[in-house]
Order: sequence, then C-alpha cells, then structure tokens
Amino acid sequence: MNHRHRAIQLAHGSGGRLSHQLVDEVFRARFDNELLRQGDDSAEFRIQNSEYRMAFTTDCYTVKPLFFAGGDIGRLAVCGTVNDLAMKGARPLHLSAGFIIEEGFALADLERIADSMAAAARESEVAIVTGDTKVVERGACDGLFVCTAGVGLVPAGAAVSGANARPGDIVLVSGPVGDHSLAVMNARHGFGLSGGLASDVAPLAGLVQAMLGAGGVRVLRDPTRGGLATTLGEIAGQSGASIEIDEAAVPVRPQVRGACELLGLDPLYCANEGKLVAVADPGAAGALLDAMRSHPSGREAAVIGRVGAGAGVVLRTALGARRPLLMLEGEALPRIC
Amino acid sequence: MNHRHRAIQLAHGSGGRLSHQLVDEVFRARFDNELLRQGDDSAEFRIQNSEYRMAFTTDCYTVKPLFFAGGDIGRLAVCGTVNDLAMKGARPLHLSAGFIIEEGFALADLERIADSMAAAARESEVAIVTGDTKVVERGACDGLFVCTAGVGLVPAGAAVSGANARPGDIVLVSGPVGDHSLAVMNARHGFGLSGGLASDVAPLAGLVQAMLGAGGVRVLRDPTRGGLATTLGEIAGQSGASIEIDEAAVPVRPQVRGACELLGLDPLYCANEGKLVAVADPGAAGALLDAMRSHPSGREAAVIGRVGAGAGVVLRTALGARRPLLMLEGEALPRIC
Repeated sequence: MNHRHRAIQLAHGSGGRLSHQLVDEVFRARFDNELLRQGDDSAEFRIQNSEYRMAFTTDCYTVKPLFFAGGDIGRLAVCGTVNDLAMKGARPLHLSAGFIIEEGFALADLERIADSMAAAARESEVAIVTGDTKVVERGACDGLFVCTAGVGLVPAGAAVSGANARPGDIVLVSGPVGDHSLAVMNARHGFGLSGGLASDVAPLAGLVQAMLGAGGVRVLRDPTRGGLATTLGEIAGQSGASIEIDEAAVPVRPQVRGACELLGLDPLYCANEGKLVAVADPGAAGALLDAMRSHPSGREAAVIGRVGAGAGVVLRTALGARRPLLMLEGEALPRIC
Repeated sequence: MNHRHRAIQLAHGSGGRLSHQLVDEVFRARFDNELLRQGDDSAEFRIQNSEYRMAFTTDCYTVKPLFFAGGDIGRLAVCGTVNDLAMKGARPLHLSAGFIIEEGFALADLERIADSMAAAARESEVAIVTGDTKVVERGACDGLFVCTAGVGLVPAGAAVSGANARPGDIVLVSGPVGDHSLAVMNARHGFGLSGGLASDVAPLAGLVQAMLGAGGVRVLRDPTRGGLATTLGEIAGQSGASIEIDEAAVPVRPQVRGACELLGLDPLYCANEGKLVAVADPGAAGALLDAMRSHPSGREAAVIGRVGAGAGVVLRTALGARRPLLMLEGEALPRIC
C-alpha cells in the first residue's frame, strides 16, 4: 500500500476498493492458501475425500446504532453469516457467536439482542452452538460488537462461485436495493425521515434452496457493504467478464429513492442485508424468476442485466447513456453492518 | 441475574463465576440446543449420518497491550482457537479471522500481527481460509480486536469431554502455569519485572494427538481465563465429581511464583495460553506421561491430583491442609486474552 495509507482509514472498512486492497496486500498475501484464493463469501472445502462439502464463513458486526427500524445488531449478525453460507449454495447448519461488550452496557439491551439472535436463528433453521464473551473497560469499545461464524453443507451438484459468470448469462436481483443503509442512517442521524424506511435484514438460505431447485444458478452474492455496484464489480473481476446493468430495471423503493436524492446517495452503492444478486444461465430465466417470486424473500425479483465479454461493469441509464459503474471509493457509510 | 448486575461489569468477562452466570442466563437460556449444552470448548457435531465428526469453536481477542513477551494478539487468536478445537481431541483444519480495527491504527502493526498469525497457522498446520475486516472511527475501539473461529475433524474413537471425569481418574497438567497472565501484566503495567517472564502462547494440537495415541484421555481443557482453579471447577461441575489437587505437584516457574507473590496473585487463577489440563484413566498414567514428556509442549507435564466422588475442587497445601478451590470471583485480570 502506498505511503498515503500507512494508517488505517475508515475507507479501509467500506467494502470498496480500499477494503479489497487492504485484504489483498495485508491478509491474503500472508495467509495465502487455495481456499482463501476462492474469493467468495464463504470458503468451501471437502471433508477428507468424502462426498461432503462444507462452507465456512465469518463476519464482525459494528453497526451503529445497535437498534434500527427492521432489525438490530443481533439479527444482522445471524442473517449476515447465514447469507454468506447461502451464497455458496450451502444449507447453513451451525453458527458461533462472539461478543465484545463495553463495561456498563445495559443488560436489558444485551438480552433484547440475544432474543433477536435466537429468533433469527430459528427463522434461518440454524443453531448457535458455541460462543465467547469478552468485556472491555469503559471507552475501549462502543457498546457492543458481535462476531459470528458459520458452517454449512453444500448440496451435491451445487457449483456456485463468483468466478462462474459467462458471457450471455443474465444478472438478477432478488428485490429492491438500498433499504438497509437508509434505515441505519436514519436511525443514526435522526433525520426523522418517515415513509417506512426499514432494513431488509433477513435470512436468504430458503430463497437460495428454491433457486437451486429451479436450476441454472452460477453466481450468488449478497450486496452488503459497497452495495450492488461493488458486488457486480467483484463478480466481473472474479469471472473475467463484463456486466451491463439496465438502470431502469433495478428495483428501488420510492422512499429509498427519495431519501437517497435528499442525502446525495446512490442506491446502487447502499448496503443490503436481505437481498442477493444472481448470475444464471439465460435458458433458466423463466423457471428461476418463477421460483424466486414464489418465495417470500424474492417476490420483487428482477432481471437487471447481462454478462458480456471484456471487463468492468457498465450502467445503461434510463436515458440510454452508458457509464462505467466503478467499485465504491472512499468511506461511504461507516458502521453500516 | 440480580439487580446488582443490570449493567455489564468487567467481572462478566473474567472467565469466572460471573462469566458463567452471564452466559447461562443471557445466552444459553435463549440459544438453547443440544450442542450448546455440551458445554465444552468446542461444539462437536456429526455430518449428517456419516462417520465424520466436526468440532467448531470461536473466540474474540481483546488483549492489552497487543504485543507482549512471547507473543501478540495474532499468535493468541490463532493458538486459542486451535487449542479449543484440540480440547475435543479434534485435528484443527481451518480458521476464520475477523478484524475490528480503529481508524488511525498503524498499518505496520497490522502487518506484524498478520505475519504472526500466518506463522502460528503454519506451526499449527491450519489454514486461515475466510475473514472479515471492519474499521470503526477513532475512539470506538481500542486499536484492534481479533475474532477467530475454527473447524476441526474429530478422529474416530476419540471421546473427550469435560463431562467424562470419573472417581479414581488422575488429573494432569502439561507444564508450568501462570506464564501468560504475568507476561501480559508486565507488558501492560510496565512493572519492569525481569527474569524472563514470557507468555506460553502455543498450539497444543500436536501434543493432544500424541496423548490420544497413548490412550486413556477422558477430559482435555486449556486453563485460559480464570486459570487452573476455574478450569478444574468447570470439569468437576460438568462431570458431577470432585477433584483434589496437590499444591506441591503443580508446576510454577520460579519467576512466575516470585512475580505473583510481589503482586498478590495466585498462579492457580492466572491465565495460560499454551497449557492443558487432562483427566485420564489411572491405568494409562505411565504411557500418557511418557507421551506428553516426549512432546516439546509437554516436557514438564505432571500428575497434579485425582478425581473423587462428591463435588467441588479441593487443594491439599504443602503443609497438608485442605482448602476449597473456588471458581474465580471478581474481575481478576481484564483483557488478558
């Protein structure tokens, strides 16, 4: 990393370009191994030489505030890890949960968050089977951080990876984008934006199993930090392909669009916690959209673009112009998850 | 929890009695499931109905300072999770690593910690296969926290659990206790204690495989937060048995004993990060001690006591008196791991 970055900046945690640079240059370079090189939301490995393939993932949650419309840090920590497993096509089995708690934190809030985690785990059909609790002195952390990890079983035949997109494939999103970021910002800054801004935080494992049943799925990824635009950039990069997105086809709720205009944000770069992007065989489009729209988490699913040769992501605007959709630069929205 | 504890105290993270109460009343009560009820350092589960048994565990590290004689937060985070897997008899396979970093943290320190993690992973024969990086604003965390999780494979025939101690069994420790706590305290407070105080942080998976080869192992646990005394209390509680320890038989390095006397600490309550406690069939004592002492991590292994009927842990002092060895009360040493 260059000399401008000899200290960690908020942008290193944005999920965008600087995050990728930090991870590549500091962590991947040192921990290098075949599984890490997969570069997906979960690492996939086979148990010895058996038929069993496991997915394994982790995420740390530092969202601020801890409670927001539509969810809280607990629901986020369970759903986020469940979704990272699901993005490999895996059926999530078990989660771990680590808590870093500031001295003086209200026990009632911890109980409320644990209730929320238990409910999200039931909804996701996973069990929280192991954990750890650390307490740090006042001022050493901001209330509560939660780190979850998860293991899942990849069904026979599933072959889902960010590297599998091919020219001609279609790109789908499971529903409207941007809800999570706007709900958290509204709660954090007290904008008082009304009109039903709420996080979409939800487990996606059920939707994914329905999609795998329909067939044709090559790539799954949940567009969290960095939003849809950054996620598409990752897929294009991993697959060595280009992606063209039709702006008019990307679903955005009117209240999210309105809030984004007010705040000068682009919904394509806003985080989601209950949505997925899929790349699929165009021949499977009908069956796949039917399967998605039949599931409560995919009712507003839409085809939003196509994979091509070349590299990079391009947005075709409503007026017909084409502009490159780069990965997120800068810090955007720190502590959004 | 009673009204005195409506807010989290440092003692809730000590690993002692209040930690157990917090975990039982807030987390276990809500997340309740069969695997969580095992109450061991790792959860063990079978892959579908196959022969494969996996161990799964997590730990969060908030040690202060980040660097100390004998190790750093990175080595601790790798070895701690490797050891929790080993305490189920598992062969560790893969780790995840989550980083919560404060804005402004020196990149050079992060690189040094990543180097240390990579070296500890090689030493432990595990790969770090997945991870997450979050950055929080200045003042929102104290430099760096690291959360690791791990998966391992339990060899056929291994049946190790804190619940397996039986009256008549022997209790062993793999080497001198207290080194880690004293090294961290010395680094934190600048006591300037010389005489080679250094953390024992090390992976124990190799030692465990050698012990399982010798046979007779019923319980394995690493005496981290809360120290040997608290760990013995956990084993006695889980097994529904009593344990009697011979104080003179417990190895303590002279420099640790000296520093403890100076600081008013009891080495039996000081944390270790490269030691294990074992409970074993008395018939296997000779072979087991031979196997331990032949391994670099167990050269100073010793039999320190015996399991009996009844409940609780008793210390037989050098003068022949018997006093109850209760679990750690109060906060002891916050941020020791």
